[in-house]
Amino acid sequence: MMTSYNVAILGATGAVGTRMIEQLETSSIPVKTVKFLASKRSVGKVLRFKGQDVKVEEATPEVFRGVDLVLSSAGGSVSKKLLPAAVKAGAVCVDNTSAFRMDPNVPLVIPEVNRAALAQHQGIIANPNCSTIQMLVALAPIYRQYGLKQIVVSTYQAVSGAGQSAINELLQQTQQYLKQEPLTANILPTKNDIKHYPQAFNLLPQIDVFEDSGYTHEEWKMIHETKKILLADPDATQIKVTATCVRVPVVIGHGESVYFTVTDQTATTTQIRDLLAKSPGIVVQDDTRQQFYPQPLNAEGKRETFVGRLRPDLENTGAFNCWVVSDNLLKGAAWNTVQIAECLIEDHLL
Amino acid sequence: MMTSYNVAILGATGAVGTRMIEQLETSSIPVKTVKFLASKRSVGKVLRFKGQDVKVEEATPEVFRGVDLVLSSAGGSVSKKLLPAAVKAGAVCVDNTSAFRMDPNVPLVIPEVNRAALAQHQGIIANPNCSTIQMLVALAPIYRQYGLKQIVVSTYQAVSGAGQSAINELLQQTQQYLKQEPLTANILPTKNDIKHYPQAFNLLPQIDVFEDSGYTHEEWKMIHETKKILLADPDATQIKVTATCVRVPVVIGHGESVYFTVTDQTATTTQIRDLLAKSPGIVVQDDTRQQFYPQPLNAEGKRETFVGRLRPDLENTGAFNCWVVSDNLLKGAAWNTVQIAECLIEDHLL
Repeated sequence: MMTSYNVAILGATGAVGTRMIEQLETSSIPVKTVKFLASKRSVGKVLRFKGQDVKVEEATPEVFRGVDLVLSSAGGSVSKKLLPAAVKAGAVCVDNTSAFRMDPNVPLVIPEVNRAALAQHQGIIANPNCSTIQMLVALAPIYRQYGLKQIVVSTYQAVSGAGQSAINELLQQTQQYLKQEPLTANILPTKNDIKHYPQAFNLLPQIDVFEDSGYTHEEWKMIHETKKILLADPDATQIKVTATCVRVPVVIGHGESVYFTVTDQTATTTQIRDLLAKSPGIVVQDDTRQQFYPQPLNAEGKRETFVGRLRPDLENTGAFNCWVVSDNLLKGAAWNTVQIAECLIEDHLL
Repeated sequence: MMTSYNVAILGATGAVGTRMIEQLETSSIPVKTVKFLASKRSVGKVLRFKGQDVKVEEATPEVFRGVDLVLSSAGGSVSKKLLPAAVKAGAVCVDNTSAFRMDPNVPLVIPEVNRAALAQHQGIIANPNCSTIQMLVALAPIYRQYGLKQIVVSTYQAVSGAGQSAINELLQQTQQYLKQEPLTANILPTKNDIKHYPQAFNLLPQIDVFEDSGYTHEEWKMIHETKKILLADPDATQIKVTATCVRVPVVIGHGESVYFTVTDQTATTTQIRDLLAKSPGIVVQDDTRQQFYPQPLNAEGKRETFVGRLRPDLENTGAFNCWVVSDNLLKGAAWNTVQIAECLIEDHLL
């Protein structure tokens, strides 16, 4: 008889949590029981799982007794507080927050990129930042085949990355804009900072708070998570990474304009395109004659990362531009988390 | 007595044309008479200029008799057809279309950057592409002071760059999205191409048509106009430029994430910020502690180019990132055109 698992979803009522439920339903994970956990204010709310009603329970350190697998997306402070208790209770936790990402004892995993790192887990596995995930799904095959020297990325990030309340705010502001009313802003660019600005029909070059370096924490994550994930290879060479992260008035689906230079100067655009087309998790959408390229509205609800507009820098050998789009709530969050859990089971690590 | 001029605005009823009228009204140009010219279908429409009604006339080769100055934004094919007739009739033409930009006999001018090139005009002066203008207002002072080796730019372009009909389409699609109706697309990403896609809550990595190189014509313009404008300096050294142009669901105001490397490796972020703050046409909005950075909604209606998020690439000496925003209909089009006309008068070239 196949083993089945008691699964808890922490932060089940949020934008990512609700997608985790859907992704778990359609995953290969044999589920014995589910617990949907959230803060006090959501207790008693009823969600559905495989046709059954499930009542939301309060997330407390005691609730993890008997749980085998925790999928967590309730915010960094909640993860820091509760996941150690879950691990103590015997659960393995896949955490979608930034709480443990840079912890040297916690693998930071994109299954298509560094699945082998799962074997090192000590109870917690971290899901990278959404922007990092889709960029590395696209770049890791290139890095392995041709070497990467430099990455310059500019992001076009959807508001759903800031949660359901940010989606609601964008839609409300959009209504206000159309009625020529003043736009009210209480959440974006980020709940964690003091000032809030309208996002509807606007661009905000701030995601998360600013570091002393002048970079935002989101940009910091893209730089440092990329290094943690790619440079764990024993034969890794240094990669220079710089990032500019911008929030755009899109609900779901991040876009990324990625400039990269490769070590192997003989690499051609055609070779790289062919490599990406056969790489896991990637769909190449790249035919300029047919005006075929990735778009957030088309990526919504899909698990893959979409790559297009691949072309050489016409003045620098070994340098290329491409355009990468993925559903930030799925591959950038809920799906990558559930996918890690699938891999843990397949690799006998749960 | 001060000389005054007979001015014609070609394409007066469009998104740029209506701004040209406003910018002309508030300019230092002494206007004797105005003619508002457009296609047959707008003839008889009444527009206002300095409190007076002005009837729109049909743009024909004959209509330029007695006109001293033509401000033109009616599309490249119209400019190609009519501006030679205007020049023959004795007018000087400032053209906002792409028709003559790369013509070696036509100066391509941003007054803050290469005003001296106006002296070479033979009747037509071209206004650069909107994305090129705001990037070079920001980068030209850096180029002159420290030298520029490389530019990697990713644009976030407002739909007004595609005209009033594109603005109307975005607003209609936005209404449809909020009502959960299918989005109808007939104009964007570009009228000149076959397929059309929804822009509301979406990103379209295509502006203008694709070249065989895999770059769009908009990207081609940013690369080649930059070289024409900056490298006309007799002591110019080569600059490598690459660009990715993306349309975003914003009505007015282009954003640009600009990565650049300088020749003088001793240049610091503070020096560059100070240089920009005292350079013409630039407003530095750069205080991350105060969450102060350029935003399209704040740039709308302003003539300046706004620069912020200036910071060094933490891993490459002499490399920097910044974020540049400007009203694409004003500095990117109508204001730059009227500003060129002001300079022609001041420099006794009209």
